[in-house]
Amino acid sequence: MIVGLYQTPQPISLQEGIATIEFALSAAAKSGADMLVLPEAFLPGYTAVSRERPETWDKIHECIADLCRRHNVGLTIGLPEYVEDRLFNSAHSFAHDGTPLASYRKIQLFGPDEQALYASGDTYVTFEFKGKRFGLLICYDAEFPEHVRHLAKLGAEVILVPTANMMPFVNVNQILIPARAAENAVTIVYANYCGASAGLEYVGRSAIHGPDGYPLGAKGTGEGLLIAELPDGWSERGIPPSSQLDDLKHP
Amino acid sequence: MIVGLYQTPQPISLQEGIATIEFALSAAAKSGADMLVLPEAFLPGYTAVSRERPETWDKIHECIADLCRRHNVGLTIGLPEYVEDRLFNSAHSFAHDGTPLASYRKIQLFGPDEQALYASGDTYVTFEFKGKRFGLLICYDAEFPEHVRHLAKLGAEVILVPTANMMPFVNVNQILIPARAAENAVTIVYANYCGASAGLEYVGRSAIHGPDGYPLGAKGTGEGLLIAELPDGWSERGIPPSSQLDDLKHP
Repeated sequence: MIVGLYQTPQPISLQEGIATIEFALSAAAKSGADMLVLPEAFLPGYTAVSRERPETWDKIHECIADLCRRHNVGLTIGLPEYVEDRLFNSAHSFAHDGTPLASYRKIQLFGPDEQALYASGDTYVTFEFKGKRFGLLICYDAEFPEHVRHLAKLGAEVILVPTANMMPFVNVNQILIPARAAENAVTIVYANYCGASAGLEYVGRSAIHGPDGYPLGAKGTGEGLLIAELPDGWSERGIPPSSQLDDLKHP
Repeated sequence: MIVGLYQTPQPISLQEGIATIEFALSAAAKSGADMLVLPEAFLPGYTAVSRERPETWDKIHECIADLCRRHNVGLTIGLPEYVEDRLFNSAHSFAHDGTPLASYRKIQLFGPDEQALYASGDTYVTFEFKGKRFGLLICYDAEFPEHVRHLAKLGAEVILVPTANMMPFVNVNQILIPARAAENAVTIVYANYCGASAGLEYVGRSAIHGPDGYPLGAKGTGEGLLIAELPDGWSERGIPPSSQLDDLKHP
């Protein structure tokens, strides 16, 4: 099982975003990836989301499913979700044949802007794909040990995290995400934007961390694909898996 | 406020251990440290603890208090604690004038050997010293986000961790401990052994991590003192403190 992410600047338009999805899927297909992850609210772009539903939005899911089918690669992507008068910051997973696998609504909204724009989700989500159990979180969710722990206890082996992490919060990428993988003995695919947009400088530094916490691969601050084969064992370094999941004593 | 740790091989005898405590306190005093931390079960040594109470054990606390007083430095040290027919893996803190400040019994015993030897503690411990609130944990305790979170919620600003972490678990030092600091915006002093003893190769790599998770200082694998002044603000890098403590939403 090969998982991947594509790190890229925030799209400048819906059209450009869709073109980037297609390019990213073609690159992922060329590298044999089974599941690709793109950043948070990738369409229309993290800072471009508004309460106004874009006119062509109805066809977005169908369009993405079609791209997956065409390139034969699964995709997990951040998209706003319009539900009556509420808006959710969601992640949607599609199989390589375009079948919808799961969708998840961000629980932990970040800061006053997100809290004004979105309603908060209330349900953890896992799903099976090609024999592995995946879990979904979005950006700020993954900074909380409690949320990642919860998915691990639900059996998630790989946690996919579309994100939009901006400077100066580089310690999230460098310090928090590796620990989330190690303390739960799971693989984490953390897919961020790079570059600047609407006054935000994105951190880049997307990475895939294995169950011992060390990166299976990591991007710098530029655009591009990152893939990693899920490790067979727990650790290339011979570190035994964390037994924390079973062991916790809490007075 | 200057905190420090002294990384050293496991003592080969009680007498040599006491001599090392004295040397470490003198080095800490020379560097202006207010509170020094030594490893887990430092007397008689992590692998030298047995159910048999050493003959001279009654005088150990008095002897350590006297050394603190003489060097005018506070000390936190791992020591077994004999309570009737039970044995606890404990940490004891002394003020610079030798006054006992707090003692803590390890909650999270590691592996079958510790679980056979010790009884498990059931109480979190914090204490005030020179205007700061300190918390105590021991080794495996600190690998669990839940325990560090609990101390942070009790108001601990600095968490002192005597430890005895052995290879291959180097990801604890490099990945888990930095995240414990960052996710709770606390300083962590993680004081380990170096060298080999009784078939264990200790990891060394003791470190002091600031509230943004980055090391204020870190040892390699050799013996020596490490000190750090507690940061005035949250981060030398201008990273705002984690707001995770206040923010958690848990469906």
